[in-house]
Amino acid sequence: MALITVYDDNYYMKLAMQEAQIAFDADEVPIGAVLVYKNQIIAKSHNQTELLRDVTAHAEILSITSASSQLDMKYLKKCSLYVSLEPCIMCAGALRWSQLGRLVYAAEDRKQGFMRYGKELLHPKTKIQYGLMKEESEKLLQRFFQNKRQK
Amino acid sequence: MALITVYDDNYYMKLAMQEAQIAFDADEVPIGAVLVYKNQIIAKSHNQTELLRDVTAHAEILSITSASSQLDMKYLKKCSLYVSLEPCIMCAGALRWSQLGRLVYAAEDRKQGFMRYGKELLHPKTKIQYGLMKEESEKLLQRFFQNKRQK
Repeated sequence: MALITVYDDNYYMKLAMQEAQIAFDADEVPIGAVLVYKNQIIAKSHNQTELLRDVTAHAEILSITSASSQLDMKYLKKCSLYVSLEPCIMCAGALRWSQLGRLVYAAEDRKQGFMRYGKELLHPKTKIQYGLMKEESEKLLQRFFQNKRQK
Repeated sequence: MALITVYDDNYYMKLAMQEAQIAFDADEVPIGAVLVYKNQIIAKSHNQTELLRDVTAHAEILSITSASSQLDMKYLKKCSLYVSLEPCIMCAGALRWSQLGRLVYAAEDRKQGFMRYGKELLHPKTKIQYGLMKEESEKLLQRFFQNKRQK
């Protein structure tokens, strides 16, 4: 019988999706993020640009700031960030400064995503993976924008 | 006799340089910013990445966040931002989201500045100007990094 690893990428991405759902319920663009250090969650966050009336209050930025204030951790070299959508240019720039160890994102963002400029926007040592729970994230985002258009 | 406009670009950039000096005195990379709306200063800030142990605590980000929390102002379409150094990719991304009206920066940053990718990183409607008080800003930065190397 194989051992089951509970705390794997799927587990953390599910939590990021739960954060995205919290954003959805608060009428924010549904994007969530979870920051993990040695299998420990050090920050969970969701997009709060409407609540805070602050264009910089993206899930990724809030996770970085939360990690730094809670753990006195300026650099995130040994951390993994799980986020439900491909980070934008601003967030990629922030992740570069943080020297993030690993970025895992679900859905791609062809319009605002950093990959338009390529992965060199991130730190050279940041590993990247994407596609995990892509459909769930896309569906939630589509539902959000469909609701908006109907209002 | 010509009338003297006190509240002009020089005046605001001088204030941004004063903010940079405050950062210098606090052993932070000396970069300062001033955000102006209809000739009123709505935010003054300087780089605080060391104090806050937060890589996102650049002068520009702090000014945007301050404006949003103080004035309930999410978009900065009618604002000018004066900053002593060319913004980085992260800050350019943030300024794009904010739809900033006008960006005035002093010194160029060939290594980390957003202009490596071109002005399309900013919002299409953002006007850009640079070079004002360039030498003062460069000198302060050089002095900071020279001091660091000597330590």
